[in-house]
Amino acid sequence: MSRQAREAHDGFEALAETIVRTLEAAVPGERFESHSWAHAAGGGGVSRLLSDGVCFEKAGVNFSHVHGHALPPAALEGRPDLSGAGFQAVGLSVVIHPRNPHVPTTHANVRYIETEACGDVPPRFWFGGGFDLTPFYPRLEDCVYWHQTAADLCRPFGEELYPRFKNECDRYFYLKHRAEPRGIGGIFFDNLRLADFATTLRFAKAVGQGFLDAYLPILAARRYETWGEREREFQLLRRSRYVEFNLLYDRGTLFGLQSGGRVDSILMSLPPLAGWRDLGHYDKQEPERWLREFFLKPRDWLNPGLSCEWRKQETK
Amino acid sequence: MSRQAREAHDGFEALAETIVRTLEAAVPGERFESHSWAHAAGGGGVSRLLSDGVCFEKAGVNFSHVHGHALPPAALEGRPDLSGAGFQAVGLSVVIHPRNPHVPTTHANVRYIETEACGDVPPRFWFGGGFDLTPFYPRLEDCVYWHQTAADLCRPFGEELYPRFKNECDRYFYLKHRAEPRGIGGIFFDNLRLADFATTLRFAKAVGQGFLDAYLPILAARRYETWGEREREFQLLRRSRYVEFNLLYDRGTLFGLQSGGRVDSILMSLPPLAGWRDLGHYDKQEPERWLREFFLKPRDWLNPGLSCEWRKQETK
Repeated sequence: MSRQAREAHDGFEALAETIVRTLEAAVPGERFESHSWAHAAGGGGVSRLLSDGVCFEKAGVNFSHVHGHALPPAALEGRPDLSGAGFQAVGLSVVIHPRNPHVPTTHANVRYIETEACGDVPPRFWFGGGFDLTPFYPRLEDCVYWHQTAADLCRPFGEELYPRFKNECDRYFYLKHRAEPRGIGGIFFDNLRLADFATTLRFAKAVGQGFLDAYLPILAARRYETWGEREREFQLLRRSRYVEFNLLYDRGTLFGLQSGGRVDSILMSLPPLAGWRDLGHYDKQEPERWLREFFLKPRDWLNPGLSCEWRKQETK
Repeated sequence: MSRQAREAHDGFEALAETIVRTLEAAVPGERFESHSWAHAAGGGGVSRLLSDGVCFEKAGVNFSHVHGHALPPAALEGRPDLSGAGFQAVGLSVVIHPRNPHVPTTHANVRYIETEACGDVPPRFWFGGGFDLTPFYPRLEDCVYWHQTAADLCRPFGEELYPRFKNECDRYFYLKHRAEPRGIGGIFFDNLRLADFATTLRFAKAVGQGFLDAYLPILAARRYETWGEREREFQLLRRSRYVEFNLLYDRGTLFGLQSGGRVDSILMSLPPLAGWRDLGHYDKQEPERWLREFFLKPRDWLNPGLSCEWRKQETK
């Protein structure tokens, strides 16, 4: 294993521990169960799953380090010259499906990939990752806070990073067939090399820590809000869009399935319950219609400029 | 419109009526709601949806007739010479998600496609379709009956058809990432031209009628069986596999999304409720473990030859 792959491995493994410990501390009594697995082609991972908690209906933290003789198709987009290159991939991903519909679903990921020399193409490495938020009953202040935290963690690494990664996030988490984003976004990056390996690894770790900083206050603010059948029904409807995104578009999911990873770990991102029912009436009702009308639009969340009509609604 | 497209249109439209009337008669008090839509590139369809019934938790009957300037990628597999060919597609599809976990989920489809002359390639037409069964608590006699009915409807059109279409069905409805079929199969055909257009259309209509003949007795036999939380939980788990198949592999779904069809009609096949929860203990419990162990294996259902152990279980 290269020194870099080892450092990414150790860094992401420690980050996974931190995330698991921090989340467990936030929801006393709810515990992750750990499952280690080996990859057929070499390497393996540790999947941690929290099921049926009071606060977290389902939460997963996946760490993996796999090797392969050739990058799978999902990883070749924009890098056709690397077709056939041996690779190592170290990844950490987190998905949280809270039970309370007022608490947003969220996802975070960091990954390190290095390829071996292949024909004329020299060895290469890059990082990818980010985090994004999928609220069902969004609050403006939460969305602003989420993006502000993302911008703050990016700034020490370059002023231009947040706007770039924010736009990439909007582009990536987009359901083309519904002409609708998955949520209110966050940051997303791929093919990333900052000044050097060490700086980029530091940035990836900052993204993992920034995810916790961004999510925990929103969790704390919303977890005790009351909800009932109506909010649950709407949540299950919206979660079905999450499933559609992950199975139709998500490169990480398709990369995992194509590279023969552990299916239950890869699909840990899918919600514990989701429904495809005919609930079009929510498009006309408040507050549900505000989700698609105001929040699921690409927007400068640091200066959201939402209409007065919406603000009146929010302060009711 | 060509005479053939018109005949397929009229034939499938009548078949949709028959299926809707027959299903409604089987579940008194449950009604389909009808929704007509127009396709941006020409043509359109009628979607009929039954929601939240006592017996049918969700059922959909979609009829569509769309035109396009070029076959979408999902329709080009095995026909690369037709890339860029203008086309007409007439289709009818049915999906039923019953509430009672003892009643299998089922799907049927017939479609007619004709392409215009394109470069050196002359105009062409073909039929596709079939039906398949996805039980959660399968009964051997139901599986045999299902396949027997399929074999009986195929026989007048050729002895070789059922075995061929049964194998194609096993190959098609297969979740590669789980190394598991979607259900116990049935028949599946594509690229089909029997002696002539009229014979093939008659066969497609026989498939639609055969679907009703095969499903209704199973529905009648199982709909009043008792069930509770456990069966529901297992059903929701298994339905998640159904979602995975349709979004990851189903050519009809991908064809629809790629050709800009009506999203709610295309995704009508998805279950009203499904869950991705950690329920691995069902792999070790009876009767749930029998599903994967005995039923979700390619099998000659006309002579199933199931083990004595299983037969003892069945007669308990």
